[in-house]
Amino acid sequence: MVESITSTANPLLKDVRRAISRGGLTRQGWCIAETFHLLEEALRSGCEVKAVLAAQSARNAVEAQAEGIRIAVMPDALFQSISGTETAQGVMALLEPPVWRLEQLVHGNALVVVLDGVQDPGNAGAIVRAAEAFGATGAIFLKGAVSPHNPKTLRASAGSLFRLPVLPGMDAECARRALLENRMRLFAAVKAHGNGSARPPRDADLTVGCGLIIGNEARGVSPEWLSAAEQVSIPTVGVESLNAAMAAGILLYEARRQRTTA
Amino acid sequence: MVESITSTANPLLKDVRRAISRGGLTRQGWCIAETFHLLEEALRSGCEVKAVLAAQSARNAVEAQAEGIRIAVMPDALFQSISGTETAQGVMALLEPPVWRLEQLVHGNALVVVLDGVQDPGNAGAIVRAAEAFGATGAIFLKGAVSPHNPKTLRASAGSLFRLPVLPGMDAECARRALLENRMRLFAAVKAHGNGSARPPRDADLTVGCGLIIGNEARGVSPEWLSAAEQVSIPTVGVESLNAAMAAGILLYEARRQRTTA
Repeated sequence: MVESITSTANPLLKDVRRAISRGGLTRQGWCIAETFHLLEEALRSGCEVKAVLAAQSARNAVEAQAEGIRIAVMPDALFQSISGTETAQGVMALLEPPVWRLEQLVHGNALVVVLDGVQDPGNAGAIVRAAEAFGATGAIFLKGAVSPHNPKTLRASAGSLFRLPVLPGMDAECARRALLENRMRLFAAVKAHGNGSARPPRDADLTVGCGLIIGNEARGVSPEWLSAAEQVSIPTVGVESLNAAMAAGILLYEARRQRTTA
Repeated sequence: MVESITSTANPLLKDVRRAISRGGLTRQGWCIAETFHLLEEALRSGCEVKAVLAAQSARNAVEAQAEGIRIAVMPDALFQSISGTETAQGVMALLEPPVWRLEQLVHGNALVVVLDGVQDPGNAGAIVRAAEAFGATGAIFLKGAVSPHNPKTLRASAGSLFRLPVLPGMDAECARRALLENRMRLFAAVKAHGNGSARPPRDADLTVGCGLIIGNEARGVSPEWLSAAEQVSIPTVGVESLNAAMAAGILLYEARRQRTTA
């Protein structure tokens, strides 16, 4: 199952390079998972790994981990030239991203995170990781947010994107309607300052089915969501705001705390 | 107050490049703050800004913000060649980092975060940002952790490093003794799995003077701190662990929650 790639003109390599620079899927619809840890997470999560690209120096380690999978080995310099990470480990798995339906996110006492314009892939991935950790039923990436299939998002999720039900690139209006039709309450995370109408999360009832709206790093939650949602604001001192992923993680923690205490 | 830099051999430029690549201070002991936002935060926090490096295209904006401060302007390409960020804004402030004494962190009902081997500057900065936001009295960066003066740490702190009392590069043994002599309780953040002796943070009394120990991203808290501390573990499902900054932020949020409810 091991083949060699020697040229930058190799079609698979060109496709992977393009997907990395665009921050999305390859033409075949595969997502790209760098690092051995992510490959391991993909395998233990039951993802279909289509192929693994390996730098020559990492070949043995890749073969040991990716038994029975197509492996394409290339010189280290060639691997480094396509890798998106500064400290490449010499491994890049190509895999079929799991596909989910709305009903898999919205059921029972749902807890869904809505990424409304979140731009930083590190933040988006961290939000998904925290969502899984605190028992959310899923995450919706609205149009205009970074892609869950961006290799950097995938990496920051530490594998949670292989397991948590996620809907990518959803229309905001559709998402809002779907959540409201399912009788979910919407909570928008807003900055602490100058929001008299916002409640601290411990005073919001997060034990019911609810959607937590996390806005863009600079502009916050968009007006359409704000007007449809109750505002929650994490009480802080000194800082202008919390990082978007941190705010999301704390709301999710608070929801979990309420749900397991109640 | 405006001068020109035209050569890569300029001594100030060489010094700045070296500091960025090492992730620390310049030879004169200045730290490097990239982005207009950080410059603004430095000025509003009362930091002594020694000089501002500006790309030619950003000169007017820099002059408007850095009135009365030494400005060194250079061609855009030269600026780009020294900048540590992918998306340089053309501004880099050099400033005297605030210097703090232990007594400024440890007083009254102190809440101190101890960074024990945290390596990622993004994590370290996010921890300091959350520490300020949730009313911590300070942060201790132990020897072996990333530097609080790393330009990337500074950037991720979003300016909190200009205000929160921080001790850089402290010896672990000294830090432990100082905290214990001040009758502070020590809590080490550990992974949820396989720690029968760890309590969830809501069952730990974080209203007393306490130190929260945050360990290395891969190895966790070091044995010397583990044996001196009570273990707390944020209850999670699915994931192997939380990101170090997320765990720290949630412990700090929980401490603030307890302190403002009590």
